[in-house]
Parts: sequence; structure tokens; C-alpha cells
Amino acid sequence: MSQLRVVVWGENVHEKENELVAEIYPKGMHTVIAEGLEERGGDGIEVSTATLQEPEHGLTEERLDATDVLIWWGHRAHGQVDDEVVDRIQKRVLQGMGLIVLHSGHYSKIFKRLMGTTCSITWREAGEKERLWVCNPGHPIAAGIDRYFELPNTEMYGEPFAVPAPEEQVFVSWFEGGEVFRSGCCWRRGNGKIFYFRPGHETYPIFYDDNVRRVIHNAVQWARPQGLWIDSCPNIPVEKAPEKIEEKGPKLHKPGDEGYK
Amino acid sequence: MSQLRVVVWGENVHEKENELVAEIYPKGMHTVIAEGLEERGGDGIEVSTATLQEPEHGLTEERLDATDVLIWWGHRAHGQVDDEVVDRIQKRVLQGMGLIVLHSGHYSKIFKRLMGTTCSITWREAGEKERLWVCNPGHPIAAGIDRYFELPNTEMYGEPFAVPAPEEQVFVSWFEGGEVFRSGCCWRRGNGKIFYFRPGHETYPIFYDDNVRRVIHNAVQWARPQGLWIDSCPNIPVEKAPEKIEEKGPKLHKPGDEGYK
Amino acid sequence: MSQLRVVVWGENVHEKENELVAEIYPKGMHTVIAEGLEERGGDGIEVSTATLQEPEHGLTEERLDATDVLIWWGHRAHGQVDDEVVDRIQKRVLQGMGLIVLHSGHYSKIFKRLMGTTCSITWREAGEKERLWVCNPGHPIAAGIDRYFELPNTEMYGEPFAVPAPEEQVFVSWFEGGEVFRSGCCWRRGNGKIFYFRPGHETYPIFYDDNVRRVIHNAVQWARPQGLWIDSCPNIPVEKAPEKIEEKGPKLHKPGDEGYK
Amino acid sequence: MSQLRVVVWGENVHEKENELVAEIYPKGMHTVIAEGLEERGGDGIEVSTATLQEPEHGLTEERLDATDVLIWWGHRAHGQVDDEVVDRIQKRVLQGMGLIVLHSGHYSKIFKRLMGTTCSITWREAGEKERLWVCNPGHPIAAGIDRYFELPNTEMYGEPFAVPAPEEQVFVSWFEGGEVFRSGCCWRRGNGKIFYFRPGHETYPIFYDDNVRRVIHNAVQWARPQGLWIDSCPNIPVEKAPEKIEEKGPKLHKPGDEGYK
Repeated sequence: MSQLRVVVWGENVHEKENELVAEIYPKGMHTVIAEGLEERGGDGIEVSTATLQEPEHGLTEERLDATDVLIWWGHRAHGQVDDEVVDRIQKRVLQGMGLIVLHSGHYSKIFKRLMGTTCSITWREAGEKERLWVCNPGHPIAAGIDRYFELPNTEMYGEPFAVPAPEEQVFVSWFEGGEVFRSGCCWRRGNGKIFYFRPGHETYPIFYDDNVRRVIHNAVQWARPQGLWIDSCPNIPVEKAPEKIEEKGPKLHKPGDEGYK
Repeated sequence: MSQLRVVVWGENVHEKENELVAEIYPKGMHTVIAEGLEERGGDGIEVSTATLQEPEHGLTEERLDATDVLIWWGHRAHGQVDDEVVDRIQKRVLQGMGLIVLHSGHYSKIFKRLMGTTCSITWREAGEKERLWVCNPGHPIAAGIDRYFELPNTEMYGEPFAVPAPEEQVFVSWFEGGEVFRSGCCWRRGNGKIFYFRPGHETYPIFYDDNVRRVIHNAVQWARPQGLWIDSCPNIPVEKAPEKIEEKGPKLHKPGDEGYK
Repeated sequence: MSQLRVVVWGENVHEKENELVAEIYPKGMHTVIAEGLEERGGDGIEVSTATLQEPEHGLTEERLDATDVLIWWGHRAHGQVDDEVVDRIQKRVLQGMGLIVLHSGHYSKIFKRLMGTTCSITWREAGEKERLWVCNPGHPIAAGIDRYFELPNTEMYGEPFAVPAPEEQVFVSWFEGGEVFRSGCCWRRGNGKIFYFRPGHETYPIFYDDNVRRVIHNAVQWARPQGLWIDSCPNIPVEKAPEKIEEKGPKLHKPGDEGYK
Repeated sequence: MSQLRVVVWGENVHEKENELVAEIYPKGMHTVIAEGLEERGGDGIEVSTATLQEPEHGLTEERLDATDVLIWWGHRAHGQVDDEVVDRIQKRVLQGMGLIVLHSGHYSKIFKRLMGTTCSITWREAGEKERLWVCNPGHPIAAGIDRYFELPNTEMYGEPFAVPAPEEQVFVSWFEGGEVFRSGCCWRRGNGKIFYFRPGHETYPIFYDDNVRRVIHNAVQWARPQGLWIDSCPNIPVEKAPEKIEEKGPKLHKPGDEGYK
């Protein structure tokens, strides 16, 4: 199987503006996520990073065309992500690129775009304990995880999580403060696989956690593109119809017209 | 059960610009669709229309708040629909309003927004015969329809139809020229029900057809709101956690902060 | 809208054999569930009960044909339910009858039959607190329920819950002992709607709880049949094909043959 | 990636009893399906066959434990398949084994068991043309297939196809006689992937067709197990609860009890 090309995208704002976050993630969260993948990845995986501050947020068309799986972490600056780049990412996901959305990325433009819903939650930042339960122990994203794993300090996200019904439920979380959350969810859109994974608040060292790293590593394997579909909404002229037909009735479009988009 | 308030939205462009369409639909397609509903609707249904040309396309916040089901027909002028109105419709669907998207509406902003995909098709305008097969004879949207019904002249839409897997498949179409299409599809997004129905090309008198009218009438009943959810992504402070917890660890947000959207 | 005919089926074994259960439910759990529905039901609902001990478990073909929604509670005696009765219930659900499965009914023959999976869970009987969170506040089954409700003493059911991915997630539970569970799940099979609702252990007075009663009452409305489909796998002879065709090639079946089942 | 172990199960009845079928498939249909896989499979795939007539239909527990993907063709003798063997196959699919069900296998015990529905169709044996359209050109099961492929002579299967809504729609068929059918459908049950593929009537040389062979070869790759889940419905005693709790209230079960199944 060919090398898996993963890009970790990080907003990279709080790491610079907030002392606390800067202390935990001096090189940026994206770097730590990337290191987690490389640590486990061996030869089969090729990881690079991109950030908001780079031209085109580091996600040019060429870069995305050469990306198999994109990991997305954003929070403070969702609104600063260029709509054109969002269009481009969506297009690539529909073609087949995998997408892993982390934590506060639930409110990113790209995730809301692909879900079609508000993606809202309830939340509390109190450093409470989270326990993530495995809903399907045989799921490849849960490989190597026991019945559950815990994170000692997390921001709480609670139901309702305003997304379309997940096609596969991999994790559901229990919180010390009494809430629950569907914390590992799979969807397909077009030809791309999407995984949302809840942990990742920037004021705690979540992306150094061994289980979190394992899940992300599993998820990029799971999200590997299976094929490529570039759709174009083609007109099929009468002479190319599989069955011989004759044109009947009036027409709106002239030969060679494109559809209205 | 309370009165069902339906708004039929029509783009109303080809009816004015194209002689042929103007002849078939002199009062506009939206009017004919509305008449079809009223014909069957009896006392339980209250139908009105709105068009692109009206201020805010006839879909002010007040109007949408008083709408149970919105029917959407657009084609030529998808790009002229104001993004703010699209935001507003999406919000109402997620709250619970039903949405029926007709024919070329597959490429409308609101449908693409809710699906998260390109919604592409293949197509041919040759006036060929379409036969719509019922995939679940007990489905309320197919009530009163035999095993299938036919339309003598239609524009063909063929697979692939680039949408998320339908949650319910009500109709699949057979075309004279040899193609097939998933022509009646159901989804839920947020708290709203969405039905896509394929027939409706403007150069044929599709919306006068008895079976088409019956399906649309069934669909608005099916899409009736079942409840209302206005989501707000609320912060749940420590003192309101269901279980007593004490704040631990560092915080990013100050009390009363809103989340980043 | 016509009267909704609900049958509450109870296994009625522990109520007779176990002193504790007999004390809480002296007339049987089915009676208390039925009373809860009648209390709220007003004129629109007609409730009766059936038990394991009656001939054909009280579920003759005639009875089921006159049932709109069946509620199922069983535990100790799943294995004593006659397979022929299970066949009959399945057939009616596929035709359109609603089915509400309660608590230990996750292991009933009819639920396993309709899901196609083991329907396993993890469990603990320690009288711990359960908190049921609403995942879609606009869902009709959650109508009248606040953000969550609590039960002070319950048997715990934990993930993994071995069912196909729910089509709608209405509730997820938090348990005092640290587990979570998808405690309110919707599916459709054939033309019937199915709702699994977790609470209901027989050693606690769960079915006297106001919120539990409300949810069950909501669920029977939600599960109301929307249509009727009696499928028969019909042969369509050549002369009845919608398009004129001529028979070609060899045949296995003789005219009038039924398919092999 | 490790070798993929595929077992092709054939009923092997018509091949012996019907002269016509015997002429097309002198060594049995299962043999031809297996040869098609071997032809394409190269080193990565290990194919064997099993038939109804063997002890335990050739599907002992040991055999199934060493099977990654099972292909199923049956028709005349569905009723002769031992329920115990069906239980065993179901168990293995839920653990993670892939299952490819061909043509008349829609009425097999194992397919009906996993779907929970009647799996009915409509049908006509007239040797008519079928055209299978690809619904997602990027789907791995459609790899190498053009926009559609045709089979000159087939038995027709028409909608309604009484199955739960497919999780992925890979093919939809157009028939010369005017019907349509969802002819390539994916589901997951437990940890196993299931693909139903319509072509395969025994009176035509379908399993020699290059495109059919390609799809089956793609499908076994797609259905490759991704993990293993052996569920057991474990009791979690109080002392093993993740959160410290004290037993409260009355109990039905004694320590060490198993749940009622």
C-alpha cells in the first residue's frame, strides 16, 4: 500500500497569544499532533503541517491534491479562514480525501459546511475528568484501546451535539460533571471519510496523551482515500444515450450548454 | 392537528424570459404548484407563494417563522439568491421547518448547504419518458401511488447523484434513454425533514400532473414540523453542572464568555 | 386522526416469582405501563395488555392486525416466546406497526430479529443513578423533557450496545458508576418504526416515574403507522412488463411458479 | 497486508438437477465464481469453495474462524440450510467477517437474518437486458467500472427491495422491461461489512462476465475485516465500576449470575 500523506492543520493562534497554551505547546499544537503521528507512523506515513498564517493557510490546490488525509484543529480564528480555501477542502473531501476534525473544530467552517448543520454543543471549562467509551471494540479507529480511556483534565462538551446522525459511533464520553457526548463519530460525504474526535482543548496537554495519539493514528489509516471521484455534472446528448431515443418536445438548453449552478 | 402553513418558493425567471415556459406556466410555476396543493389540501393546509423578485425573496424572518414547510423550485438564478436568506432558511430547517426541493433545485444554495456535497447529476433534455418506481409502498409520501407512475416527457437526470446516502428511498426513476436516478429521497438535518423530488422541468407541464401533485401534497404532510429546537451552544458553568465538581486546572475562557464561532 | 391502538406486552414472570418485584408491581409491570399511557392518553389512545401466559402470548394474528403500536417488556423468559409469534410480530412491524422495546427487551427475540445483531450490552445491578440526556431537543419523543432527567436507582447498561447505528439518537445516559449508554434509539424496518428505551429494571419503580411515562407516551405517538405495506415478492410476467419486451433465452421457472423462499 | 481468505459458498443444486444450468456451470457456479477471483487475485487472495452438500455445508466453526470474506449464492434450497450454520455465520459477520450476497441470495436465511426484513423483490425471467449504473464512481467496489456496464440476458429484479436503507448505494439497475433495482448495496452489522450484488441468475453465464468478476473481486477487498469484536454481555461488578459507587437498593441477580438471553 502506498505512503499515506497527512497534513496537520493548526490555527496556531492561542499558542502565540496565550502564555499558558504557549507553555504547553511551544512549537504549536499542530507540531505536537504531527509528532504523535510520526512516532507511530513508521515508514508508511508522511506527515507535514500547515497553519492559518501561511499564504492560503498553507493549503494551496497543489498541496491539497497531494494530501490523503487532512487533520483540522481550529478555535479562536474560525472566521479568519478564507472561504475559498474552505471550498477547496470541501472539494477534495468529496473527491476522496479523508478529514479528521479535532475538538473545537466542530465549529470550523469546513466541518459545518460538510455537515450542513450548526454543529453546536454545550460546554464548560473546568478541567474535569473525561472517560471515552468504545462503542464498537472492533472498529479500526478503536484498535488498541481498552474498553475506555480517561483524560484527567478536559473542557466538557455536552449533548445535544447538532450534527446529522453519525454513520458509525466509535466513542461516547462520560464527564465528571454529569454530562455525556458523542465524542467519536464517522460520516462519509461524497467519496471522503470524515471523523470527528472530541478531545483537544488547548489549555491541557491532550495531544501528548498516548491514547489520543493512538486514536488519531488509527483514524488517519481509516480515512485513507479509497478511490477518486471528480464530478462534473455532464450533459449526456441524445446520441450518447445508452438506449436509442429521438428528441421529443421543446428544449430550454442549446447544444453544448452547461447546467445552471 | 393545527393548520399546515406551506410556502411555495419559485424563482420565476424562465416563466418571464422564455416564451415556451410562459405559455405553460403563465402565472408562474409557483402558482401552479400552490394550486395543486390547495386542490387537495382542504381545510388543513394554508398555501402561499414567494419569489426571487420580492424583497428578501419574499422570505423575511417573520415569514419563515410562520412557515411549516417550504417548497423550493429554482434553476436559472441559483446564484442570485442572497446568502443571508439562505442562512435564514437553513436555520429554520434545523429548527424544524420541512423543506421540499424540486427538480433543478438540486443545485440550489439551500440544498447544497444542507447536504454538504456537490449535489451533481448527469442530464439530457430530450423530452423522454420517465417512470418513477415506489421503493416503499407503505411510505406516506407514496400514499395513493400505484407501483409506479409515468411522465411522458421529462428532462433526464441520471446517476451519480452526489448526495449523502438517503435515509429513506421513496422513488427510483427509469428513463427511456437508458438511465436511472434516485428521484425521491429523504433526509433529516437538525430537527427538519427534507425531501428531494426529481420531476419538474419547466418546459413540460409536469406540475399539472395528478401523480406529481399527489406526491408533493403527501410530502408536505410528511415534512410537518414535529417539534422545535433553537440551539445556542450554551456554556454550563461549574455551579450548574449536574454533578458537584470543583474547577481544576487552567482556563482559557473568562466567566460569561461566548464560544468562538 | 384515528384512535391509536396500543398493546403493552409484559412477560409477567418476575412479578409472580419474585417478592420484591411483586411488591412494586402487584398487578404486573404491563398494567402499570398501560396505566401510564391511559393517564396521559385522553381519548386519542386505546390501551390494552397481553402477557406471555395467555394463549399465543395474547398476540393472535387478529389482535396484531388491530394493533398500531406494540410495547415490549421481557427479561427472564425471552426463550419461552414462541417463534411463530415472533414471526408474526416481525411481519406486522414490517407492514407498518410501531414497536417500543423497553430495557431488558434488548435481548428479546423480536428485537434481535429486527436488528440482525446480538444487541449485547454490559451491565451492573447496583441501584445507581442514571441521567438521560436529550440529544435532539426538538425530537417528538423528547417533547416536554428538559435538557435531561434522572432516575435515582437503576440497573446500569453500558456501551458497547451491539446494534446497527441508530438512525436517530434521542437519549444518551450517564451513570453514577462511570458508564454511558445510547439509551433512546430509533430505527425503521420495512414500514415500521422501532424505538428502544433503556429504563425499566423490575426491582425499581421506574414505570411510575413521570418522565419515563412521558417518553413512552411520546414514543407511541411517534411510532404511529404511516401506511401499510404487505409485500409478496410478485412475479411480473412478460406481458405485464411496463415496456414491451420479448422473452429471450432459457428459463428456470415455469409460468405461475412462485420464487424460492 | 495479510492474505485475504475467501470462501465461495454455492448451493450447488440446480447445477446438478437442471440440464441447462449444468451446461453453463458444469463444475458448479461456486467454482466459476472462485476462478474469477483467482484470475484477478494474484498472491494476495486465497480462495476456496464450500457447498450445501458437505457436512455442516462446509462451514464448520474452524473453517469460518479462518475465513475473512464469505460469498453466498443460493436459490432453490434456502430452506435446507441448517439454522445452526446460519447462527454461526451471523456470529462471524458480527465479529468482523465480510459477507457478499449474490442474486437470489437475497432470500437466503443469512441475509434475511442480518437485515431483519423480508428482503422481497419483484421478478421476471425473460432474459432481458440489465444496465448497472455506478452511483459513486469513487467507491472501491466500482473501481475499474465505467459509468455503467450491461448484461445482455438477465432475470429482472424490481423495486420495492424490502431491505433497510442501504448505507452506501454503489449500483442501481435499469431493465429493458421497464423496471429499476438497487443492485449494489452496502451495510454494516456489528463489525462486519455486507455487500449485496444483484446479478447472477443461473440460466445465464453471468459469472463469466468480466465486469461482474471485477465487482466481486473489488467487493471482497472492500469487505476485508478491519478488526475483531467478540461480544459477551459482561457483568461489571460494583468493585470494577470506573467510579467508586456503593450498592444501593434491591437486587434481582446474585453475584456471578449471567444475564437472561
